[in-house]
Amino acid sequence: MIGKAGLFFTFTFSLFTFNMILSARWVLPLSAPPLLRGAVRICGDRIEAVGPLPRLLEESDGDSHLDLGNAILLPGLVNAHCHLDYTYLRAVGPDLDFPDWILELTRRKNTCAPDDFLNAARDGARECLRGGITTVADCTDSAHAAQALHEIGIRGISFPEVFGVDDRDPMEASLERLRQKEERLQPWLSDRVMPGISPHAPYSVRATLFEHLNRRSQDERLPLMIHLAESDDEVRALLGKQPWKSPIREGFVQWTAPGERPVAYMERLGLLRPGVTFIHCVQVTHEEIGRLAGSGAGVVTCPRSNAYLRTGIARLREMLDAGVKLGIGTDGACSSGPLSIFEEMRAAWLIQRSTGSPMTTRELVEMATHGGAKALGMEDQIGSLEPGKLADLTALSLDHPTTQGCEDPYDALVLCGSSESVLFTMVGGQAVWDPNRLFAGPCHAYSATEK
Amino acid sequence: MIGKAGLFFTFTFSLFTFNMILSARWVLPLSAPPLLRGAVRICGDRIEAVGPLPRLLEESDGDSHLDLGNAILLPGLVNAHCHLDYTYLRAVGPDLDFPDWILELTRRKNTCAPDDFLNAARDGARECLRGGITTVADCTDSAHAAQALHEIGIRGISFPEVFGVDDRDPMEASLERLRQKEERLQPWLSDRVMPGISPHAPYSVRATLFEHLNRRSQDERLPLMIHLAESDDEVRALLGKQPWKSPIREGFVQWTAPGERPVAYMERLGLLRPGVTFIHCVQVTHEEIGRLAGSGAGVVTCPRSNAYLRTGIARLREMLDAGVKLGIGTDGACSSGPLSIFEEMRAAWLIQRSTGSPMTTRELVEMATHGGAKALGMEDQIGSLEPGKLADLTALSLDHPTTQGCEDPYDALVLCGSSESVLFTMVGGQAVWDPNRLFAGPCHAYSATEK
Repeated sequence: MIGKAGLFFTFTFSLFTFNMILSARWVLPLSAPPLLRGAVRICGDRIEAVGPLPRLLEESDGDSHLDLGNAILLPGLVNAHCHLDYTYLRAVGPDLDFPDWILELTRRKNTCAPDDFLNAARDGARECLRGGITTVADCTDSAHAAQALHEIGIRGISFPEVFGVDDRDPMEASLERLRQKEERLQPWLSDRVMPGISPHAPYSVRATLFEHLNRRSQDERLPLMIHLAESDDEVRALLGKQPWKSPIREGFVQWTAPGERPVAYMERLGLLRPGVTFIHCVQVTHEEIGRLAGSGAGVVTCPRSNAYLRTGIARLREMLDAGVKLGIGTDGACSSGPLSIFEEMRAAWLIQRSTGSPMTTRELVEMATHGGAKALGMEDQIGSLEPGKLADLTALSLDHPTTQGCEDPYDALVLCGSSESVLFTMVGGQAVWDPNRLFAGPCHAYSATEK
Repeated sequence: MIGKAGLFFTFTFSLFTFNMILSARWVLPLSAPPLLRGAVRICGDRIEAVGPLPRLLEESDGDSHLDLGNAILLPGLVNAHCHLDYTYLRAVGPDLDFPDWILELTRRKNTCAPDDFLNAARDGARECLRGGITTVADCTDSAHAAQALHEIGIRGISFPEVFGVDDRDPMEASLERLRQKEERLQPWLSDRVMPGISPHAPYSVRATLFEHLNRRSQDERLPLMIHLAESDDEVRALLGKQPWKSPIREGFVQWTAPGERPVAYMERLGLLRPGVTFIHCVQVTHEEIGRLAGSGAGVVTCPRSNAYLRTGIARLREMLDAGVKLGIGTDGACSSGPLSIFEEMRAAWLIQRSTGSPMTTRELVEMATHGGAKALGMEDQIGSLEPGKLADLTALSLDHPTTQGCEDPYDALVLCGSSESVLFTMVGGQAVWDPNRLFAGPCHAYSATEK
């Protein structure tokens, strides 16, 4: 049997600053064309230079040098939407439609012990790390995901979820629940794990609550993450054309539907702006895509989750062409399966290509790195290999059984990438996933302790 | 770096007959409902019994017993269509349309040395084995794939491809090339690696050649494998509505198009019958699906390849409902990526579900095992766990980072399965892929030698 022990490592590290050069057959800065025999110089937690290997070696002042050989070195992948603490609820009810699936998820959640969620979040965070993910934007009911991100060493934003739409459920109760969640979050926050707020969705949060949280978000510069236009059921519920089943009470939610489509509703509430990230946006018109693009808000697509819940196919080609800040996320394991951005890119590629709106593999890798960073408002820090940005990197072997023979690095990542072929994952200059112990020799900034 | 050495093992084995019981949390016979805490008793190269673990232990006469714990034990996966010797041409020209892609593939093939193809076939066969595949139906230009199957120990049918449609290319030349290929194949044939013939496709093989090979197939009981109704271009070429670019000469193929759609053409030539397997069948009507179902011929779908080459979406739901003998294959790495049946099932699930024709995960596992065996005419020997059938098995860990939390075994296989979580692959009672050395203790029928 494959034991869990031995598969994962955590690292303790000192603040000692080191310089090192990492090189590989391919370096993908994302902000510039691929470099054949490229290299990246890292100083402490930052990228200092990116360029052809001979130039970086010439400029080097005794930096240690690690050559990855036949591999692709790229920015760490950005999982721009996840629910880490649902990792043990993997693949819940794959034959249910969306409203019934939410009810089933709620039922299954209620059968779990709190420890299950914490351990699930830890395993989910490790699973992300193994798959080259360096940043996770996580929506959560608890502080478990933030604790897991902190412990495992992945960068992240933890968005405590806010619910409250039923007329029988006072707004003060929603805000009190949020206050408690934020208090529990505090111990795990840092430069690496940052806070946000997630007003869950327009069918689960009332307008006055959205308005309150929008003001707080702007006053305190807290990012917001909102599930939007996910299903046709949601659109019909917002338009007042069908009732919405309550996940907490028997029967239907008691509310006055806004009478608008999702994007128009968000616009009226002043939420179409930078600092807000919308998840899914499957049920949007061409004109609504234009409004999203012009607003500066981010959008995150979760193709496997949309297929799973049969909510439709997001118009990714149109969004990219319109200039939407577009990232990609795994959503929770409950509606996708493995927490793998490789799987997610591949699903998007297959589905879009099969239905007549092909995307290039370059566009998908962009979505999974630079695009995700933009969608989360983090593009000044992460998402591309540029001097001054954080040293969040990963690398894919091209000598692995599933990648060998690939000529193009973007094709290799999207069509053949998997956790198996990830060589390491580095966050802020620290190799937090290093199964091949590449960094034991050249970089002494931290020491490995088996968990 | 992950070295290749150490990843793969080959086994030499004696003919010593052993009995053993394999058990797991889930046993999927495929011919019967899943067994919770089930077991399989193996005697030599055959399955002797399948049932609840307590019953098999009670009936046991000192058999060795290996419990796989939290895992799924199932029939080995059937990769019902592949081109192993193209493994190093992985992901060729993913932005080309079908006719131009064939030309690009031919161009790339001509730049490879013969040794490349042999090594590619070996690595491809190992990749299949790592992914739980125990049978490969391979179409090939050479004997390399048969040699690789023989060496690696996977079961397979090797179909030498026959081409010859151009009026300038005499039929005798096609038959002479086939004769030479069959001669080179001879040393690698056995009970495990069997021969077939692949008249390539209706746009690359003339009618008289099809007729000749159909007679030979029936006289010698040789299975046939034919690419059929793959693209709209093919249908239009057969109907005489557009010319077909020649892969070997400048310009277009010189031929008289049959003036019929693909299925009708095959029917007229007497090829709609048991013993013939058609690959792709994307461009088929509802009525043609009925004719395929009634004929006893097999059909193999390659969803990733169809998406890759933008040839359309196969009507799998209709085919299953009509009773077509339907298997699934990876096609060559040149038009898919990893040679993984997990990836292939997942692609089918995602694409069919996104486009309104959902399939259950049970149906997909059926296609990948029993269905593939039926499509290849091998269902009396492989494809399900039944007494008397060959002991071709694999197992998936449910404790792996990407599978943990799954409740349903079919969901786990289709949504979360990957080579990483495969515990072993057994062909004819021999563990030919055993990375965890599960079989070193209980079963001494063979000894491992690192390659």
